[in-house]
Amino acid sequence: MTAPVYAKLAVVGCGLIGSSVVRAAREAGAAGTIAIAETSEPARARIAELGLADHVTGDAAEAVADADLVLFAVPVMSMAAAAKAAAPGLKAGATVTDVGSVKGSVADALAAACPDTAFVIPGHPIAGTEQSGPDAGFAELFQNRWTILTPQARTDAPYRDAVGRLTAFWTAIGANVEEMDPGHHDLVLAITSHLPHLIAYNIVGTAADLEQVTQAEVMKYSAGGFRDFTRIAASDPTMWRDVFLTNKDAVLEVLGRFSEDLQALSRAIRWGEGDKLFELFSRTREIRRGIVALGQESAEPNFGRDRGKH
Amino acid sequence: MTAPVYAKLAVVGCGLIGSSVVRAAREAGAAGTIAIAETSEPARARIAELGLADHVTGDAAEAVADADLVLFAVPVMSMAAAAKAAAPGLKAGATVTDVGSVKGSVADALAAACPDTAFVIPGHPIAGTEQSGPDAGFAELFQNRWTILTPQARTDAPYRDAVGRLTAFWTAIGANVEEMDPGHHDLVLAITSHLPHLIAYNIVGTAADLEQVTQAEVMKYSAGGFRDFTRIAASDPTMWRDVFLTNKDAVLEVLGRFSEDLQALSRAIRWGEGDKLFELFSRTREIRRGIVALGQESAEPNFGRDRGKH
Repeated sequence: MTAPVYAKLAVVGCGLIGSSVVRAAREAGAAGTIAIAETSEPARARIAELGLADHVTGDAAEAVADADLVLFAVPVMSMAAAAKAAAPGLKAGATVTDVGSVKGSVADALAAACPDTAFVIPGHPIAGTEQSGPDAGFAELFQNRWTILTPQARTDAPYRDAVGRLTAFWTAIGANVEEMDPGHHDLVLAITSHLPHLIAYNIVGTAADLEQVTQAEVMKYSAGGFRDFTRIAASDPTMWRDVFLTNKDAVLEVLGRFSEDLQALSRAIRWGEGDKLFELFSRTREIRRGIVALGQESAEPNFGRDRGKH
Repeated sequence: MTAPVYAKLAVVGCGLIGSSVVRAAREAGAAGTIAIAETSEPARARIAELGLADHVTGDAAEAVADADLVLFAVPVMSMAAAAKAAAPGLKAGATVTDVGSVKGSVADALAAACPDTAFVIPGHPIAGTEQSGPDAGFAELFQNRWTILTPQARTDAPYRDAVGRLTAFWTAIGANVEEMDPGHHDLVLAITSHLPHLIAYNIVGTAADLEQVTQAEVMKYSAGGFRDFTRIAASDPTMWRDVFLTNKDAVLEVLGRFSEDLQALSRAIRWGEGDKLFELFSRTREIRRGIVALGQESAEPNFGRDRGKH
């Protein structure tokens, strides 16, 4: 095993992502010692039982003391408070990052809370499941996934060195790393993640409210497509509320386009314009092939096909 | 092995579903001999190579001669023509069924084409993948899935016996069977399958048309939710065009409700109404739990988690 990328890692917030980072860092030997700050008392007890860290505390400033990397893994709208709580404990030269799904607002919150002696490098691993809490994490979550870093507009050598080291950390735990402007990140994620979640939540709500079809029927016959949406719509409510409130402009922009397109599709159905439907349905198939070719997904289907999935 | 449910099975149309029925029937010993009618010459050659049937032909009337069960597995709007082509070959007392995703229009088409001596019992196995063609099928496709039968309004003993035998056939190849009114089937499927597919096709189209985000970026960062939609949106264009054109009223009804709900959600985001978002996102989580409890899906997450899936 090579030397750890950071002598001490502190993770603030230990749910699905935080606990996955901790597990992955330990497995890869990417951190020497690990401290976890978690405000929930039952979660702290569970983290201790699981033996995830060398030190578990409710006090963020205590956890981050002497840490070389401080990673905030709390819901986006809790980042400012978490960073303020941790700031007094930060050592000079520490790297501060996060895993939030929105980068513009988080970048501002971290920069405002942290002293100038810290290297603030916001980040976002594009990985997850619909599960929550410290038990939900696993070390392989970031394997073959992208982590996007949105560094500040600084070109000084110490800052760029810190970016290089953080990149090495994510690489060590299996991720591919890309740098991006925070605003562009928020737009890319609005279409690839935030809108899909919003739509999934919405259709599950619509189905639940139908009078002519019972909820039992919806569940029973969900294998024809609906089931996949329910999985996405089981994601953490607090996390996703925060995403939509903090990435409002980009989400409303892509949602507006989606709704326009859906109106056009609705009209094509009403007027029996089969050619328009066929043209769209053929075009979307190509995009799937591109994703499979990129290795972002297996070509193996799993819709209605659970073989080997359990 | 017990006696086959039907001495001879004829399948008209041998894509994903037709070829899965054939494979499953053979594996379960549910049919004595099997004939396949397929209009595509390359598909016929492939079916012969795969050795899927005792007899493969392009002539539907020839395939269905002497068959006890005739199963139509062609796109919904091709059902009428396929049934007309097969009708001259049907023996008296044969059971005629199908696997179409829409039941109202197909029930009418089959009844119109078949002689009164046939027992017409439309059906729909709620199972599938986004793949197409005879190579895509597999024997386990129907295991633990529902097949809905929509029998005609007949209560005479021979007809009900035929329904019982068709139920035994689906059960033999692993499915659970339920009877339903065709109109209700079409509404249930509109919300659980047709609308999810329409939305998936639509969002993939919207993403492809964005100017600010490249198609390469959409594919690369698709693990945050979008990827699941692309899989659904890779389904067979002809099949799905037919579904939307033949189940227009029910699809437009549930689409109208979906769009209203989405407008309300859009407004909640614009005005920062976090409570409304949180309430919906918590409610939808419960429905997922119901589906997992019903055994229609493993609790095991697979979003961003490919372990054991390949």
